[in-house]
Amino acid sequence: MKSIITISRQFGSGGREIGEKTAAELGYKFYDKEIIEKLAEKTGLAKEYIRKAGEYAPSKSIFSYAFIARNSDGTSITDYLYRVQRELVLEIAEEGPCVIVGRCADYILREHEGCLNVFIRGELDAKIERVTKLYSVSPDKAKKIMKDADKKRAINYKYCAEREWGAIKNYDMVLNSTAFGIEKCVDLICRAAK
Amino acid sequence: MKSIITISRQFGSGGREIGEKTAAELGYKFYDKEIIEKLAEKTGLAKEYIRKAGEYAPSKSIFSYAFIARNSDGTSITDYLYRVQRELVLEIAEEGPCVIVGRCADYILREHEGCLNVFIRGELDAKIERVTKLYSVSPDKAKKIMKDADKKRAINYKYCAEREWGAIKNYDMVLNSTAFGIEKCVDLICRAAK
Repeated sequence: MKSIITISRQFGSGGREIGEKTAAELGYKFYDKEIIEKLAEKTGLAKEYIRKAGEYAPSKSIFSYAFIARNSDGTSITDYLYRVQRELVLEIAEEGPCVIVGRCADYILREHEGCLNVFIRGELDAKIERVTKLYSVSPDKAKKIMKDADKKRAINYKYCAEREWGAIKNYDMVLNSTAFGIEKCVDLICRAAK
Repeated sequence: MKSIITISRQFGSGGREIGEKTAAELGYKFYDKEIIEKLAEKTGLAKEYIRKAGEYAPSKSIFSYAFIARNSDGTSITDYLYRVQRELVLEIAEEGPCVIVGRCADYILREHEGCLNVFIRGELDAKIERVTKLYSVSPDKAKKIMKDADKKRAINYKYCAEREWGAIKNYDMVLNSTAFGIEKCVDLICRAAK
């Protein structure tokens, strides 16, 4: 039985919902916003900043200097946040069975036995429809939000994990939520974990 | 119920075996060598040439001119073979439930309803071990065979499908056979197809 499931996901693919339902189904703890809250406590940084930091690209942030600038001892804000995040994810993994969404958890826990790394993708039209509804925006706006968020996730992942976000070699299982639907993805992940 | 399952796979990942067992489990027809035999019948080309043509890179073949050279009517050997292969895969898809390994079937059947596209990957060490045993070669030789075959598959796929082999957006499900083992992969694909 896999006791830790990491979920990486394209924006609009329903990955967070799939993670939450998988955790409920297996009786595992679920970590998404909870990590942001804990990071805010530990670092003193604002939750909003931490939330966005997982999806930050250098050029889009007033903290951009923090993303790029590195002192000789490596204590830029981005590096500091990642270090605390890494410690936190390792702590969570020690505490018991859980599902962790995002936060480079697949990379941070790469040496961890009993870890199932999942990536959720979706078809463009289905993701646009989902984001349009969830955020009450136009399809064009939804497309822009998605593209922007995924680009930032990829850059952030590349920066922290030094490997490619969404490349198949990082994951044990990749599912297309458009082909399967949310419930079937949950079912397949639970089955895979067993 | 998905009536057609296409299996793309890294060399040494056990994808062919997984495809064969999935077909047996679901009572579907299985197409791997059968396609090569049918293509040989239809085209008059040698089976060995057709077998390798699915994994051919231009520079490694005495037919390399055929891969690159294109007449104004597009009748190079590679193009001719791909055209017949395409017709054959479409015919097979009409005949009834089946599992098809390789041959760009995921691309050829991209508009087909009821198609489940699976990619099987594996960890390097496990693939080396598998290839070492299956082909009675040294680990170094196994590594070279694998690298070469996957490179050729990628180039061939790019040539015929004009998209990236092994990129997550082409598949509904990607499984790491090293993490799950052969039987579990079969189980997950059967479950996904239902």
